[in-house]
Amino acid sequence: MIYLDNASTTRPYKNVVTEANRINEQLFYNPSSLHTKAMTVKAEMGKARTIIRNKMNAGAGYNIIFTSGATEANNIAIFQATRFKKKTILITAGEHPSVEGPTKNLKQAGWDIKLINLTKDGQCDVSHLKQLLKDNDVSFVSCILVSNETGAVNNLEEIYKVVKGHNPKILLHTDATQAFCKVVVNLKKCPFDMVSISSHKVHGLKGVGALVFNSNINLKPLITGGGQEDGLRSGTENTAGIVGFGAAVESYRDSYFDYVKNLKQTFLSVVKKGVSPLKVNADIKESSPYILSMSIAGVRSEHILRAMENRGVIIANGSACSSKNNHNPTLESIGCTIKEIEGSVRISFSVDNGVDEVSKAAEIFVEEVNKLKNNIAR
Amino acid sequence: MIYLDNASTTRPYKNVVTEANRINEQLFYNPSSLHTKAMTVKAEMGKARTIIRNKMNAGAGYNIIFTSGATEANNIAIFQATRFKKKTILITAGEHPSVEGPTKNLKQAGWDIKLINLTKDGQCDVSHLKQLLKDNDVSFVSCILVSNETGAVNNLEEIYKVVKGHNPKILLHTDATQAFCKVVVNLKKCPFDMVSISSHKVHGLKGVGALVFNSNINLKPLITGGGQEDGLRSGTENTAGIVGFGAAVESYRDSYFDYVKNLKQTFLSVVKKGVSPLKVNADIKESSPYILSMSIAGVRSEHILRAMENRGVIIANGSACSSKNNHNPTLESIGCTIKEIEGSVRISFSVDNGVDEVSKAAEIFVEEVNKLKNNIAR
Repeated sequence: MIYLDNASTTRPYKNVVTEANRINEQLFYNPSSLHTKAMTVKAEMGKARTIIRNKMNAGAGYNIIFTSGATEANNIAIFQATRFKKKTILITAGEHPSVEGPTKNLKQAGWDIKLINLTKDGQCDVSHLKQLLKDNDVSFVSCILVSNETGAVNNLEEIYKVVKGHNPKILLHTDATQAFCKVVVNLKKCPFDMVSISSHKVHGLKGVGALVFNSNINLKPLITGGGQEDGLRSGTENTAGIVGFGAAVESYRDSYFDYVKNLKQTFLSVVKKGVSPLKVNADIKESSPYILSMSIAGVRSEHILRAMENRGVIIANGSACSSKNNHNPTLESIGCTIKEIEGSVRISFSVDNGVDEVSKAAEIFVEEVNKLKNNIAR
Repeated sequence: MIYLDNASTTRPYKNVVTEANRINEQLFYNPSSLHTKAMTVKAEMGKARTIIRNKMNAGAGYNIIFTSGATEANNIAIFQATRFKKKTILITAGEHPSVEGPTKNLKQAGWDIKLINLTKDGQCDVSHLKQLLKDNDVSFVSCILVSNETGAVNNLEEIYKVVKGHNPKILLHTDATQAFCKVVVNLKKCPFDMVSISSHKVHGLKGVGALVFNSNINLKPLITGGGQEDGLRSGTENTAGIVGFGAAVESYRDSYFDYVKNLKQTFLSVVKKGVSPLKVNADIKESSPYILSMSIAGVRSEHILRAMENRGVIIANGSACSSKNNHNPTLESIGCTIKEIEGSVRISFSVDNGVDEVSKAAEIFVEEVNKLKNNIAR
């Protein structure tokens, strides 16, 4: 099997599973207990915190709380907007449902939610952002770093300057789920107030994520109780998952970027030669090597997926999280037609993939797409 | 080491770790993806759901969503009270902080929260409950099944009759974290609207719990996003933890009750002979065999804990979740003096414990407590 659905989830690294087992078998204690072994577990969690902070260059002004995943982290982030009474919240038109969803709830409660347009290449339209800031009393901005749909990378440095330049009090959040470890997240250069990340997208376990946040923002907890995570996220910590998250991040090498970039180029060069017409979404320099989004009008993505799986290749149509329907706000925002959305696939890579299997998968893709097109033509 | 802090957390069963590893290594796929292997994972989660439902005799009228733990499940449950505008919420004075915490937030937002007294034996005072129902416009009642502090078991059948007899529209929730698998939870006999449970209290992994709820109540999600768990709890599921939860529950035998009851009696009989004065909290028939709470006025619990750990025995002072301070609302509610609370310990058993080690731990307890008392007397 050739697994090219790594933006949905990645295979946990061997050392992650080993670390999780060590915690589950030898250090299963509740970190809130008072005995020495519990403190050892607490210290292990502290190591994971440090690894993650260092990876994103988070200085002393930042804290980190572990959550059940990036979805919860995004929900906590958006929840912070409730301290500003009924002012305007800006999010890009290309946010993940876990950012968009909680803003919908706020809208029902009276908040004003405005979408920042995407450019045709899938990036946050900064001139539209400027216009929205000028026209509204904005208290909160959320901008995804790497689109889970297209792989388009937003220019957070520019967005930071525009937003904080307009009003330094605006809370600024980024969902870095598809970015963390994979493209640069540097809080020294680009000091966003809140950053959401996930473990299972970087070869850690499912059920763990984190919110890294500026300690000055006085974070309001969404889940309360026993007072874990400095009172900011109650509930017995997923210790094995957290330690595994640290292990995954520690293992992640910057050199993977170039390796995976080569995988994407390999796939793309084969497909560009073999499939026509083909629309590559976010076909720009500022695109994550990990995600390749393509639209083939006239073929249905579910048929491509099935044909590919029959040949042993796993790919996706849009994000797994929104796979239940054909509606795709991100692709709509960048101007894809309904036919193009219906024929959109997402190929996503990881360092686990070999060049040969990616090359083979691309050839199978060309064959199967052309077969499907011929079937329709006949 | 003799581990008698099983109410804080339990050692994961071997088959739980094996099952989790199987998912992490062979079926790490995102259950929301569309390919066949993803559907296999989904089916595995379905099996865990069935095991858990069967264990609590939840009929077709009940649904189950997996959460990050009982704390989140309790937060979701209390969140349901927000559909009733500013009416009165009743909770017992002996709830876990993850029930009490979210009600405090509702209080700030204008809801009226009233505490149902506990009897001196630690149970919900049903006559006070009746009085509160009579005197207030109550929309929501939450009553813990087994106290995490004292082990007192509430009579849910009676509480169900009183509350629903008063007004069938009142939402009724129980936190069954310390009860599930351990004492009877039977939704056929006692059809509460919502039940919170946790995996790591029954030898599953941390980071997983569930809310079992009557499908008629139209549950409002606390965390929104990709629409997982029928749109009621978004976020990529902790698949390994969920399958492990199912494995833990499936392994749990009803016969453990008598086995663990014998452990508690063994411990108690030694301590009752050797330590005087000794106050056993919730020293009644309706007490969980898994939890033994004792107050020894004049000795500080942290000194007992340290002395016990030096002899290789792990116990706790009150619940791990509130171990950060000496305040203990449950023990206060049942009439413990400050001296008694300061000298309160919680010994909690599991099927992992042997009779011999429990007997030995009790002897060590007697020795160490008497040593501490003599040190103070000198």
